[in-house]
Amino acid sequence: MSGNSLGNLFRITNFGESHGPAIGCIVDGCPPGLQLDIDDIQKELDRRRPGTSRHVTQRQELDKVEILSGIYNGVTTGSPIAMVIKNIDHKSNDYSNIANSFRPGHADFTYYKKYGIRDPRGGGRSSARMTAPTVAAGAIAKKWLLENNNVIIRGYMSQLGKIHIPFISWDHVNKNLFYAPNIEIISKLEEYMDQLRKKGDSIGARIEIIAENIPVGLGQPIYNRLDADIAYIMMGLNAVKGVSIGSGFNCVEQLGSEHGDEIYPEGFKTNHSGGILGGISTGQPINVSLAIKPTSSIRIPRHSIDINNNPVIVQTFGRHDPCVGIRAIPIAEAMLAIILMDHFLLNRGQCG
Amino acid sequence: MSGNSLGNLFRITNFGESHGPAIGCIVDGCPPGLQLDIDDIQKELDRRRPGTSRHVTQRQELDKVEILSGIYNGVTTGSPIAMVIKNIDHKSNDYSNIANSFRPGHADFTYYKKYGIRDPRGGGRSSARMTAPTVAAGAIAKKWLLENNNVIIRGYMSQLGKIHIPFISWDHVNKNLFYAPNIEIISKLEEYMDQLRKKGDSIGARIEIIAENIPVGLGQPIYNRLDADIAYIMMGLNAVKGVSIGSGFNCVEQLGSEHGDEIYPEGFKTNHSGGILGGISTGQPINVSLAIKPTSSIRIPRHSIDINNNPVIVQTFGRHDPCVGIRAIPIAEAMLAIILMDHFLLNRGQCG
Amino acid sequence: MSGNSLGNLFRITNFGESHGPAIGCIVDGCPPGLQLDIDDIQKELDRRRPGTSRHVTQRQELDKVEILSGIYNGVTTGSPIAMVIKNIDHKSNDYSNIANSFRPGHADFTYYKKYGIRDPRGGGRSSARMTAPTVAAGAIAKKWLLENNNVIIRGYMSQLGKIHIPFISWDHVNKNLFYAPNIEIISKLEEYMDQLRKKGDSIGARIEIIAENIPVGLGQPIYNRLDADIAYIMMGLNAVKGVSIGSGFNCVEQLGSEHGDEIYPEGFKTNHSGGILGGISTGQPINVSLAIKPTSSIRIPRHSIDINNNPVIVQTFGRHDPCVGIRAIPIAEAMLAIILMDHFLLNRGQCG
Amino acid sequence: MSGNSLGNLFRITNFGESHGPAIGCIVDGCPPGLQLDIDDIQKELDRRRPGTSRHVTQRQELDKVEILSGIYNGVTTGSPIAMVIKNIDHKSNDYSNIANSFRPGHADFTYYKKYGIRDPRGGGRSSARMTAPTVAAGAIAKKWLLENNNVIIRGYMSQLGKIHIPFISWDHVNKNLFYAPNIEIISKLEEYMDQLRKKGDSIGARIEIIAENIPVGLGQPIYNRLDADIAYIMMGLNAVKGVSIGSGFNCVEQLGSEHGDEIYPEGFKTNHSGGILGGISTGQPINVSLAIKPTSSIRIPRHSIDINNNPVIVQTFGRHDPCVGIRAIPIAEAMLAIILMDHFLLNRGQCG
Repeated sequence: MSGNSLGNLFRITNFGESHGPAIGCIVDGCPPGLQLDIDDIQKELDRRRPGTSRHVTQRQELDKVEILSGIYNGVTTGSPIAMVIKNIDHKSNDYSNIANSFRPGHADFTYYKKYGIRDPRGGGRSSARMTAPTVAAGAIAKKWLLENNNVIIRGYMSQLGKIHIPFISWDHVNKNLFYAPNIEIISKLEEYMDQLRKKGDSIGARIEIIAENIPVGLGQPIYNRLDADIAYIMMGLNAVKGVSIGSGFNCVEQLGSEHGDEIYPEGFKTNHSGGILGGISTGQPINVSLAIKPTSSIRIPRHSIDINNNPVIVQTFGRHDPCVGIRAIPIAEAMLAIILMDHFLLNRGQCG
Repeated sequence: MSGNSLGNLFRITNFGESHGPAIGCIVDGCPPGLQLDIDDIQKELDRRRPGTSRHVTQRQELDKVEILSGIYNGVTTGSPIAMVIKNIDHKSNDYSNIANSFRPGHADFTYYKKYGIRDPRGGGRSSARMTAPTVAAGAIAKKWLLENNNVIIRGYMSQLGKIHIPFISWDHVNKNLFYAPNIEIISKLEEYMDQLRKKGDSIGARIEIIAENIPVGLGQPIYNRLDADIAYIMMGLNAVKGVSIGSGFNCVEQLGSEHGDEIYPEGFKTNHSGGILGGISTGQPINVSLAIKPTSSIRIPRHSIDINNNPVIVQTFGRHDPCVGIRAIPIAEAMLAIILMDHFLLNRGQCG
Repeated sequence: MSGNSLGNLFRITNFGESHGPAIGCIVDGCPPGLQLDIDDIQKELDRRRPGTSRHVTQRQELDKVEILSGIYNGVTTGSPIAMVIKNIDHKSNDYSNIANSFRPGHADFTYYKKYGIRDPRGGGRSSARMTAPTVAAGAIAKKWLLENNNVIIRGYMSQLGKIHIPFISWDHVNKNLFYAPNIEIISKLEEYMDQLRKKGDSIGARIEIIAENIPVGLGQPIYNRLDADIAYIMMGLNAVKGVSIGSGFNCVEQLGSEHGDEIYPEGFKTNHSGGILGGISTGQPINVSLAIKPTSSIRIPRHSIDINNNPVIVQTFGRHDPCVGIRAIPIAEAMLAIILMDHFLLNRGQCG
Repeated sequence: MSGNSLGNLFRITNFGESHGPAIGCIVDGCPPGLQLDIDDIQKELDRRRPGTSRHVTQRQELDKVEILSGIYNGVTTGSPIAMVIKNIDHKSNDYSNIANSFRPGHADFTYYKKYGIRDPRGGGRSSARMTAPTVAAGAIAKKWLLENNNVIIRGYMSQLGKIHIPFISWDHVNKNLFYAPNIEIISKLEEYMDQLRKKGDSIGARIEIIAENIPVGLGQPIYNRLDADIAYIMMGLNAVKGVSIGSGFNCVEQLGSEHGDEIYPEGFKTNHSGGILGGISTGQPINVSLAIKPTSSIRIPRHSIDINNNPVIVQTFGRHDPCVGIRAIPIAEAMLAIILMDHFLLNRGQCG
């Protein structure tokens, strides 16, 4: 399979380079009858938009989406939905000093070695911006899931560098730019980020995505497990280096008598499984944790090579995220929505 | 896509229930010209075979594989290779007391809710045994990768419950039944396992799989990334609740100035990326970590329900692994081999 | 996609060489709850079995199928169903005089050029025998379609060489070995076949396959049309050189005012569309016509080359069909059943 | 698989409704390094453009294509290539009298029954116009095939209604609007078409597509045969009711001693196989024949029903093709190019 399509019955095909004419996607498989409107999509895109605070990339993109097909009288027809986002802010010159060298930790190196062609303009297809079409597609999935099955998908930041963020309330998440479920810790986080920005460095983060009101029975054993699909799409997110479900890496130290979620007539007692057992959903909330690595493009000088293998020192100026983890939350929510929608549709085909 | 096929150009289709007549797979896409022999496959199956030590399941299975097609004069023809393993040891009665109830932490519950049919015989398709065909397919991939590209794939256990296992040498791994790279710690591990067995409990583990001599350039950006495929297949392994690449969850606390692997004319200085950047291989070893949860079938009584939603107490007698993590290593090696082979073949199709 | 899997939600993966140890398939995606029994499958295989009359191949194969998985208490579980047919009659020596040369009109040539390996034993994977697993899979689909939707799928021969066979009744079809819907013409057909056999030549045929009680709405416009899927699987049948739906090539000479099927409140007046419009089923019977070429393996001497490009004369002795068209009918029925079942399941996933 | 993607390694995903804002496609898998220019694509689109003669649809569409991604400095990068064609000429009112009724022979009926939503605007996704994106994608494939493998793909009309068109020369094909390889017969064809237009009726046609300089070895036996893929894509073309390869339906009356193409050291003697044996290319030209049905939208009154099942009389005014077959040639050429390119790339992945 070519590398740019995702999904089985709810299928997303992505196109565009960060600094080419436009980016976008085709969403294929959305059932007919869903009321869909530009605002449903724009609203999700705005959540990930750079330039909304001093903590994220200062590149001005309006990320204004256009729908080219698949809607008639404000309702999906069942035909493919094409969405396009024109690229407005192309300040390519910020990347000129790195045109021939590779940023350590960045896909420049692998992309050049694989394709023999270097597209220096803002990271080409490995740029964080390429997630915008996925977020647009995720907006459609989120809406369908909510209206058809009352599914709620939301995420938050649980750790920023060494700072653990205790969970207080979902209500706090939308009241700060970190998606932190904890208003009290914000000033500490802001202070830390300001220090990083001064130094020209970056930091990693840990984020959690939760899906609620999931019915039991999504997923197929062995090779099309729901957890496998989730791992696949999340590890495909730029900067993710680890994916876990439920207790995740805490399982390593758990006894079987602790880990297995006991069941009572009124329901499960715990949720160490994270809502998935044997690759199939249990009916409990699905909990996903992601490890987000620190951004590769920093101002601190780093050793690297150029395309002729000569040693160079690389510093990246321009506008970028000191912490990709912040913007990763709406993207990861979108991705979980896409996977869940695909599984809802698959499930109808197989056991209906 | 139906849930039992894996891969694009190197495709595995799996069948069989743990206690049905047979299990097996069809491997499709192995190029012609590879010398292949029953022993190549049997040898890998034997590494995972239960009954080889007191630390793993005492169910006697010979796991004797038959090749039904795809080989002519000891060489692959390019046609599908079907492999079958007859099930010999069907002591179903060990599972009789749980026929109508669900083991906490086990896929019994989800499988019944999804399919409306209960197959109590040893876990059906969610059983650990269903990995045998995958290991058989992985044996083919391992051989091809070694002969065609000199790729070496091997794994070890890095943590058993709370016991961290420091890496001393690869030579130690095959000299003990834990796949521990550290002879000195074995007695401590054995002692711990014996205690668990007495209590009738189980424990989690952490394992590492490494692939060496990987060329740069495997993988496709955005939706068919090499790391995403690895996460997919590994999270599809029974009992895995977390997958990470390179530094994995340690990235959360790393600065960009620490994490990004600097490049010198003679090569990379570090390998926090775990051999993959932007979803494409860098040429460095690929390092994968897995979090393995503790086994669900334990002798310790646990609260659960039966199929009529009445409360019951469940205890599992019979023969099973107190620590699935031990047997997971050869399985995870096989899975990494399958993914890498698929990517080698895909890569030829796209940039040749 | 590797070349041996067929279908989306109802997926068949085929393996085996005609004269290797066994042939078979994995059928993945059959919903749970279907009562299935060896006889359901054996019965369909017996319809295509060589050695049942002097008009078809005199190679004795019992084509006795074994089910290795997917059934529990005589009912499908929703898991993959593996079926294996051991090869009993391997008289390879009949093919020895052609081991190094290519039979004109046979896939020997292309297979050798592509794979660089010659498997002379009975045609390897291009042999007519490789359709047995497809027929086994089709038996499952036929049964499910009949029980779930009352679909009836059956075929007949409409032309043998220059002899047109007028349709009299479906009742005649099972009363002769040609699947001719016309008892009266049988002696003429038999006479013709006997002449051919004496000369050592072969002949083409035209067959029709009809599916009735098809609901409206199967298929997806543009790229996953029901008629396109039918054309795909039928053209994949050995010896098919043409596929048509409804009026087929007769459309060429039809006016729009003749061809378009008028609709009345009580239903369609005609069925030139063959039950499919715009790639979607209309609710009318689906009519498929196939052009079957004459067998490539004949006794009449023919010019060819050997693997070193030297001119040779080729004659094929041994046991084979003078008219593949006869055996093609149960195979084509099976294929149509497989496609229709896939579409029924797909349809549930998309518009349920 | 959702119904709008085509191909394995060279993958086309299509979107758009005939009278929505735009139509287009994403072409994924084009290798990097191909020089590509808007004119390469526009030139092929212009060949199929309505309004170029009195014999085809008089709806003015400029079909002006834009490339939104995948090209850098005039060369493909290996990333997906998105192409968009804005819809300019939306004269919807021509279709108002049929908004609630179904045109006999048209997909209106099936589309409404399947989706429960009627999109009367010009046929929605079943319109002939939806082939424009496919032609755009085919232009890329044609160029790559020509430059990388010297493959030439071209077609002509062999029969218009009852009028057989004898082949004189390829040079004639581009000198008339029928794609007839025979200048002498043009006035007869024009006369016939003028009569049809006066009557308000339509007619079928037969077309031939030939691909030359095809290497031996493309295609996979059993389920991914080259001929099966060709049949699939061609039967997916609007108005095609029959597809044949080589001798096609003429095989029915051929003896084996006539049909099988003899081979000499200098090459094949005949080409009844049409360039494909056993699903794999032989190295000879690939000959495909298509049966094109007469257009469904005619001025002659026809019986039909409305959406409430009441009898109506339907007449279609407005602008449409009296013979879709004429415009089908460039579309079928594009389709063959797409299939062949996919197979070239697949072939590299499997036997390289």
